[in-house]
Amino acid sequence: MPRYKITIEYDGTGFAGWQRQENSGSIQASIEEAIFKFSGENAAVFASGRTDAGVHALGQVAHFDLAKEAMDKEIRDGINFHIKPAAISILRGEKTAPDFHARFDAKKRYYRYRIINRISPPVLDRFRAWHIKENLNVEAMHDAAQILVGNHDFTSFRASECQAKSPVKTVDEIKVTKTAEEVIIDISALSFLHHMVRNITGTLRLVGGGRWTPEDVKKALMAKDRTTTGPTAPAHGLYFMRVEY
Amino acid sequence: MPRYKITIEYDGTGFAGWQRQENSGSIQASIEEAIFKFSGENAAVFASGRTDAGVHALGQVAHFDLAKEAMDKEIRDGINFHIKPAAISILRGEKTAPDFHARFDAKKRYYRYRIINRISPPVLDRFRAWHIKENLNVEAMHDAAQILVGNHDFTSFRASECQAKSPVKTVDEIKVTKTAEEVIIDISALSFLHHMVRNITGTLRLVGGGRWTPEDVKKALMAKDRTTTGPTAPAHGLYFMRVEY
Repeated sequence: MPRYKITIEYDGTGFAGWQRQENSGSIQASIEEAIFKFSGENAAVFASGRTDAGVHALGQVAHFDLAKEAMDKEIRDGINFHIKPAAISILRGEKTAPDFHARFDAKKRYYRYRIINRISPPVLDRFRAWHIKENLNVEAMHDAAQILVGNHDFTSFRASECQAKSPVKTVDEIKVTKTAEEVIIDISALSFLHHMVRNITGTLRLVGGGRWTPEDVKKALMAKDRTTTGPTAPAHGLYFMRVEY
Repeated sequence: MPRYKITIEYDGTGFAGWQRQENSGSIQASIEEAIFKFSGENAAVFASGRTDAGVHALGQVAHFDLAKEAMDKEIRDGINFHIKPAAISILRGEKTAPDFHARFDAKKRYYRYRIINRISPPVLDRFRAWHIKENLNVEAMHDAAQILVGNHDFTSFRASECQAKSPVKTVDEIKVTKTAEEVIIDISALSFLHHMVRNITGTLRLVGGGRWTPEDVKKALMAKDRTTTGPTAPAHGLYFMRVEY
């Protein structure tokens, strides 16, 4: 049975998140329904990582099996045709190795968090970025972020409902940059704990606003206690950018 | 009576355009209502240029008079507070000269047209850019655009309902650039005819797709006949960027 890999863009705004749920629309369910309409087969779709309600993706990756033999572009165009008007788009479809696994074979995941940093509310980016009025010190945020790079126990940045066995993760890189009125946090790791990027963002924002020093971030990391770190940044500023295999 | 100048961002998606109309929401009416809530005064708001339904703005400029004396930031924050949840944001408010006129004093207007040029439909930019699947030749588009720079009779690029007295306009600059999957057309002039940017875009798209040569653009311009040029590009890819005074 051929296995297919798809690369997916979505606007998370109207969805309950990636994972199929009762009584609310998920990205997974929308894609599975479109695959059924396209192929007549009930495929289970596995993503490289689950995203929460409101979180966007520019390059989510997933796989599924079909009895049907389809060309790469048939997979892409077939799902895209049937998924309308849901705000989900298949960027690429490709037949892959029968043992490829979107989740377990991932070597690195890239997330981006977007902040619009100005007084006036953003309206074109209302559901696309976090609006912060106070002027952020981006250099301080970047410096503090470097404390989190490397192999650490990220209990302080983990959601209470997180199901990961271990709170130890290795962050490969965090870059905080600014262009015009936008502050961008780019972060990559093999994998993340639940809410980890949003909790890191909420904490870096405290540094950017001058209320926390990099030393405070270090102490919070060492404390291994979620209550010591900043609030969780809202979902709608977060983008799942891409996966490396 | 003090005169105030405001710089405005809006998401044109849900609006009937800038101009106040019966039975449908306009940006002008939304701002005038917010000014009333803020000041108790019925101010008439004049924009540097009217935008059509669906057209966005990152830096529209308008002026109005109030008996009330208000600080710059009161103007900005007062309107922003009362205009919610409309997708309109006042970026700057400032007291200006009593004879300043947002429309008649403008020296140069800047528009941008965004095209997402790839096979898969854009979902994050669904109402923010024109989706064109065929691969566009951006260099050819840029070269053809240069034919339109300068002082010309733009009858061929003018909407039938255009109310301008003369079809003669001077285009200062047109730049067509590409970044990743996005083609951007930047165009500036003292003023434009109705639908002129969208008609130029529709015509340059024919060049980008290889169906038209720059010579065809020249012929169409010379013909002074709207039926000789390409279709009008959709409103939702167009952005009113800024005004110079």
